Amino acid sequence: MIPRYSRPEMVAVWSPESRFRIWFEIEAHACDAMADLGVIPKANAEAVWKAKDAQFDVARIDEIEAVTKHDVIAFLTHLGEIVGPDEARFVHQGMTSSDVLDTCFNIQLVRAADILLADMDRLLAALKRRAMEHKDTIRIGRSHGIHAEPTTMGLTFARFYAEMDRNRRRLQAARAEVATGAISGAVGTFANVDPRVEEHVCKMLGLTPEPISTQVIPRDRHAAFFTTLAVIASSIENVAIEVRHMQRTEVLEAEEFFSKGQKGSSAMPHKRNPVLTENLTGLARMVRSMAIPALENVALWHERDISHSSVERNIGPDATVTLDFALARLTSVVENLVVYPDNMLKNLNKFRGLVHSQRVMLALTQKGVSREDSYRLVQRNAMKVWEQDADFMTELKADPEVRAALSDAEIEEKFDLGYHTKHVDTIFARVFGTE
Amino acid sequence: MIPRYSRPEMVAVWSPESRFRIWFEIEAHACDAMADLGVIPKANAEAVWKAKDAQFDVARIDEIEAVTKHDVIAFLTHLGEIVGPDEARFVHQGMTSSDVLDTCFNIQLVRAADILLADMDRLLAALKRRAMEHKDTIRIGRSHGIHAEPTTMGLTFARFYAEMDRNRRRLQAARAEVATGAISGAVGTFANVDPRVEEHVCKMLGLTPEPISTQVIPRDRHAAFFTTLAVIASSIENVAIEVRHMQRTEVLEAEEFFSKGQKGSSAMPHKRNPVLTENLTGLARMVRSMAIPALENVALWHERDISHSSVERNIGPDATVTLDFALARLTSVVENLVVYPDNMLKNLNKFRGLVHSQRVMLALTQKGVSREDSYRLVQRNAMKVWEQDADFMTELKADPEVRAALSDAEIEEKFDLGYHTKHVDTIFARVFGTE
Amino acid sequence: MIPRYSRPEMVAVWSPESRFRIWFEIEAHACDAMADLGVIPKANAEAVWKAKDAQFDVARIDEIEAVTKHDVIAFLTHLGEIVGPDEARFVHQGMTSSDVLDTCFNIQLVRAADILLADMDRLLAALKRRAMEHKDTIRIGRSHGIHAEPTTMGLTFARFYAEMDRNRRRLQAARAEVATGAISGAVGTFANVDPRVEEHVCKMLGLTPEPISTQVIPRDRHAAFFTTLAVIASSIENVAIEVRHMQRTEVLEAEEFFSKGQKGSSAMPHKRNPVLTENLTGLARMVRSMAIPALENVALWHERDISHSSVERNIGPDATVTLDFALARLTSVVENLVVYPDNMLKNLNKFRGLVHSQRVMLALTQKGVSREDSYRLVQRNAMKVWEQDADFMTELKADPEVRAALSDAEIEEKFDLGYHTKHVDTIFARVFGTE
Amino acid sequence: MIPRYSRPEMVAVWSPESRFRIWFEIEAHACDAMADLGVIPKANAEAVWKAKDAQFDVARIDEIEAVTKHDVIAFLTHLGEIVGPDEARFVHQGMTSSDVLDTCFNIQLVRAADILLADMDRLLAALKRRAMEHKDTIRIGRSHGIHAEPTTMGLTFARFYAEMDRNRRRLQAARAEVATGAISGAVGTFANVDPRVEEHVCKMLGLTPEPISTQVIPRDRHAAFFTTLAVIASSIENVAIEVRHMQRTEVLEAEEFFSKGQKGSSAMPHKRNPVLTENLTGLARMVRSMAIPALENVALWHERDISHSSVERNIGPDATVTLDFALARLTSVVENLVVYPDNMLKNLNKFRGLVHSQRVMLALTQKGVSREDSYRLVQRNAMKVWEQDADFMTELKADPEVRAALSDAEIEEKFDLGYHTKHVDTIFARVFGTE
Repeated sequence: MIPRYSRPEMVAVWSPESRFRIWFEIEAHACDAMADLGVIPKANAEAVWKAKDAQFDVARIDEIEAVTKHDVIAFLTHLGEIVGPDEARFVHQGMTSSDVLDTCFNIQLVRAADILLADMDRLLAALKRRAMEHKDTIRIGRSHGIHAEPTTMGLTFARFYAEMDRNRRRLQAARAEVATGAISGAVGTFANVDPRVEEHVCKMLGLTPEPISTQVIPRDRHAAFFTTLAVIASSIENVAIEVRHMQRTEVLEAEEFFSKGQKGSSAMPHKRNPVLTENLTGLARMVRSMAIPALENVALWHERDISHSSVERNIGPDATVTLDFALARLTSVVENLVVYPDNMLKNLNKFRGLVHSQRVMLALTQKGVSREDSYRLVQRNAMKVWEQDADFMTELKADPEVRAALSDAEIEEKFDLGYHTKHVDTIFARVFGTE
Repeated sequence: MIPRYSRPEMVAVWSPESRFRIWFEIEAHACDAMADLGVIPKANAEAVWKAKDAQFDVARIDEIEAVTKHDVIAFLTHLGEIVGPDEARFVHQGMTSSDVLDTCFNIQLVRAADILLADMDRLLAALKRRAMEHKDTIRIGRSHGIHAEPTTMGLTFARFYAEMDRNRRRLQAARAEVATGAISGAVGTFANVDPRVEEHVCKMLGLTPEPISTQVIPRDRHAAFFTTLAVIASSIENVAIEVRHMQRTEVLEAEEFFSKGQKGSSAMPHKRNPVLTENLTGLARMVRSMAIPALENVALWHERDISHSSVERNIGPDATVTLDFALARLTSVVENLVVYPDNMLKNLNKFRGLVHSQRVMLALTQKGVSREDSYRLVQRNAMKVWEQDADFMTELKADPEVRAALSDAEIEEKFDLGYHTKHVDTIFARVFGTE
Repeated sequence: MIPRYSRPEMVAVWSPESRFRIWFEIEAHACDAMADLGVIPKANAEAVWKAKDAQFDVARIDEIEAVTKHDVIAFLTHLGEIVGPDEARFVHQGMTSSDVLDTCFNIQLVRAADILLADMDRLLAALKRRAMEHKDTIRIGRSHGIHAEPTTMGLTFARFYAEMDRNRRRLQAARAEVATGAISGAVGTFANVDPRVEEHVCKMLGLTPEPISTQVIPRDRHAAFFTTLAVIASSIENVAIEVRHMQRTEVLEAEEFFSKGQKGSSAMPHKRNPVLTENLTGLARMVRSMAIPALENVALWHERDISHSSVERNIGPDATVTLDFALARLTSVVENLVVYPDNMLKNLNKFRGLVHSQRVMLALTQKGVSREDSYRLVQRNAMKVWEQDADFMTELKADPEVRAALSDAEIEEKFDLGYHTKHVDTIFARVFGTE
Repeated sequence: MIPRYSRPEMVAVWSPESRFRIWFEIEAHACDAMADLGVIPKANAEAVWKAKDAQFDVARIDEIEAVTKHDVIAFLTHLGEIVGPDEARFVHQGMTSSDVLDTCFNIQLVRAADILLADMDRLLAALKRRAMEHKDTIRIGRSHGIHAEPTTMGLTFARFYAEMDRNRRRLQAARAEVATGAISGAVGTFANVDPRVEEHVCKMLGLTPEPISTQVIPRDRHAAFFTTLAVIASSIENVAIEVRHMQRTEVLEAEEFFSKGQKGSSAMPHKRNPVLTENLTGLARMVRSMAIPALENVALWHERDISHSSVERNIGPDATVTLDFALARLTSVVENLVVYPDNMLKNLNKFRGLVHSQRVMLALTQKGVSREDSYRLVQRNAMKVWEQDADFMTELKADPEVRAALSDAEIEEKFDLGYHTKHVDTIFARVFGTE
């Protein structure tokens, strides 16, 4: 998590202040439940809420932790300083640090997921708007980087929309994975804390009780969460790579918006570089890499060990902050992308009709020419275009074997671009629904 | 995919024979749909089904591919040899190789997922059976590898059950991710093939039409699939590590079943090693690693490139075959695990009552001793047990500060094991339902 | 390891026959050393060599292993069948399976490394030849995919040469990492086998004795080996990506060789796709991913566990076979790459002189114009070229502020391509030496 | 990079202040060289050094970057503010941002490597001291977590020493990989900057000129660097896992030092947990994961793209800061590890002599019993110890078949621990040299 690639709302989720606030709420709700069950005095439970609007003193807590080497104990000591040590003496009763830490971590992940979901909504809206705008903007489709057949720029945006929409659903599922809490005490047996305390705390904090915890919440949940972020990051890379290709000098079908005052290169003043999407490519690599330690965290020893903790202190903030930043940056790229339909047409015509080769081949087949012969006939004329700068239609019309099967008009009809876009509406209806 | 770690049913999913059979079905169903739409003659569509019961000659197809360097064309040529070149000449019309390859790959992944789901059912059944069997088998819970508080062996099995049950649901979601097909032609515009062909083929093969494809099915779906396998593999490692710990010489709370004739060590005849679960640990590493190239496959260039293909030729079979083998091996380990309840009790009592320290501390707190003082009192006596082989209960009874708060009977009551297992039923009901 | 991406020489390194042959040599040499030390009778050591030219019966060994579940014991039993059980009874004395397995694995890795080093020599030769051939072939250099300043195709080949040359040195270091053997007995103490046995076996097999082993050879060595393969694979991807970019329709500065009979697309006969380098991109992903389990293998439990084994049974063959194939394929791509110098010039001139913008800016600075003003002046004219299809030299000559500093002749001089290539010889001498 | 796992010296390497200081030195040395070559006036080169002792104003530079969106231009503008815009106008002439950024990044990596090398020296010293201290401390060796044969605690430390010593050599090689600089101008042709400028700058800053750069320094170097850090991290995990196993309640052969005031558990006062080594396990996962994006950074587009940058802004600091912290923490763990030789002996004797089984088997073989019979005889008696708590020596003496081959004295001799440690000196001489 570095400031350059961070946004304040997500950073705030991971601040010490947020963390201590959540710890407080867990402890205070737990006290309420214990008081209701008659395990601790009502007065003590109520007293804890005195800290409701208090600012926890992060420096003071750090100071105590330096001695105790235990963060939750440090916090509880500080809480006692606010509430009064006597009033606070039932706080955390029967609970373990993990009850607080794990439930808190999941709350932070849920909040992070909510921010990411909102990010995705904005990205989806931008992709949809651009898809509609360029639904009929003709563009050459490419496979292997080689011109294939015509498509539209709208379809490009639409496929990114569909992919991000899947990612949104995945993220919702991932959010549900980590929206659990556990107040189950040492090794998760509830021996020292009634299961109803867990139920109450979870209810108050919008979580589901973890069906079976072992002092810690099982880490397969978090592995599922972070691998989902890795999939989303890879989709961001997918869009970024497309923009980078479009902005290549030789292609120039689109460009990232280039603001006034921005300098492309300290040495070459003419340059406008796709630096935002290159940056996104790198950020995607980072988020993706964090899936590995999240997966390695699953196999803790026996009821728990603490090896996952240093990983999560890193990837919890890093993966969510980076992904939040990347989604926002990508949204801005999509919204402001400068599209050049003229260049698209120019590129499409670069090889003088060659993109229509398949249609000609199919037409030949329809007229009774064998598949192999059709392929051979088309390839023969295609190679002249490729190698000798010839015009495809002219060559076809001059080829006696082709003419034996197809008339001039039939040949010309095969060069109609509308042929390729006739199902764009169908596809848009599939992606965006029929409104 | 190496024979030692493979099972025939899953291997068969990935055989050339299976692949060509699926290709055939895709092509034949597509011909049916095209004939219905009047695009190709009914007779030709019907003729294709002549190959329904034919054995495709893998060697012959390889031979043709050696010349054409194109696998689908090689197959179609061979199909023409069976059906008759003239009858077959409309096969694949308007389609691209990817229509066949991607739809086939997804069918294979769906079949693989179905085998894995059945594997998981068997594993879940084994875990449930062992959980019920050892519901009340007392065992020390451990955090950080250090004795914490009592739990039961049944809870250990139950938590693995709950984790695998989550994995089963994840795998079902992952199966749905890849249960799509695409017959959308070059760059996915349906220009040369009617969308209704795709609908028919998908319907006949149990797939959903891919809403928007670009000649290829988008690879975020496969990334989601393979990362899910990686999560499952990590859970397998989780169980494996637990067994390895239990089988340690000093712990010996359980052992992998050791068959007659099996040799543990060529040099040391007394040894019985947890080789199955060590093997599973390694296999988990393999499946996990395959998530990375699957994620890197998402960002293909423009409408498609073929870089994903060599990855998928590897990880398609490797990840599913390895995971199938690992799930089956783990099921066998769980079913046959030899559990030693006596050793569990022996271990639990290793530190002469120390595992009850928290209960004593809480009891002191309840009696009005401050939290800090309670902690100090208990730690003081605990250290004597730890360092001087003392007995915890005896020390507590001899400590005047403790005795000021707790009677002998009250101290003794804190050493009751039933205290720790009183909520096992609650947890079992959460995990297995209330039957 | 799949046949499509495998070459026989490397596959042979990993065959059961090779493995059993190496096991035999380790055991036979160990017997010699033990006989020399008087630990076992000379006659028995000599008898073992009766199997020197024998073919080991893989099926028979598998059969025995099916009962003993121990591969080395199965082999030794079979060896006894060949040599005579009585004569063979001192074979393996004091040794453990790991002495045989680990020393064998390292021998296989060393052999694999030797094949890879030879592969790299061929690749380096091809890169050098093409670098010399195209030393002066002018080409636009690109940063961010955007035209920057002129360079030459020879420099492109030269940089890949330098990178692969570094990789060759890394691979030699990685070979040395794994060129160790260990015959140190149970837990590596040499209690049951004299260190001189290890010394003799290693000497005969071209290895260095592992200074301290613990029954197993430490796995940090293998992690270093496989991460080195991952670096090499990433460099292969680097070259592959360059070729893929050059072959793009809009760029077309080079193409993979396209053989007669080859079919680019089943649907679009005009297409020639960079399928070899796309394939290499995918293979690079595979080799790279295997670094992760190799790294996870380092932390074995205590003196050894067997979790590394299933990983190495996979990645040992898979990483080396795949990399061998990829290096050979890349060599062929480089050797046969069809380079289009005319297209390179055409691309370079696409923006009518804009690539010379920096030179003009520097010239302005030299004439006393401030850096900021120079940048502004050049950018102003550059933008006209970019946005209005203007010619850069013409615009500069027409700009009064530019003309205040530079004469026509001075402006024209800045458009000389030779300016950019004047240090190519210097760089070539750095990379290839001065011959 | 989070404060909890960071040390100030390494953090300082990556501070904005350090970075701008290095940028300044690169620019100033480059000016000197250009002045010597007569490319810029001497007076201007000298003027730049006016900023030698200046504090660069990070906030001001950020402010300028907010407008220009280009960090190097922002820095140069600020430098102009210090030196005087007129005096500074030749700074950076003919250079590109990458000349500064890449050379700076490598200097930072070299400095980081130097800190890490010093860390490793301290770790090696600690390991050596503990190895010498416990050279003869008898301990059971374990394979698969199962008791195997005796070894010594000194050998355990010695093997970690040997492994870390290999890592030190790897790190020195990795340092050399990145100890290059490049001042080669746009696309690396030296068209606008004389190669002698690069030579001078590199010489003054302790670097080697990069033989061929393309505006950027090739990223295979950095991949080699970060994968080396990943190997070291995995070795740290290896030591950490050993300590965690030793500290298990049932094993308790060693413990991390537990300071006064430290609290093991908020709930269970008796606990002393191996939290430092668990923490190191997690940190190892983090450093390891960063190898992947470093490898993905190798394949930049054409002469360069900027996708590597966001990755390196993360992993440059994160990997080195985390590894520095981990090495220091591990050194402290090793130095202060509390070793329990008595418990080691107790554990060794847990199975009443069973650890000597191999010696007995070999003795039987020596007496002419066949290998298979010896194995059977030993296993038969071993199983009684394992399953019926018998004493191994007693059982052997009572077994007529054993007694037919071995006398009581001969059996007793096989239980001598000195037998297992007779080569410890040999191994120590291999690892530490013969001093």
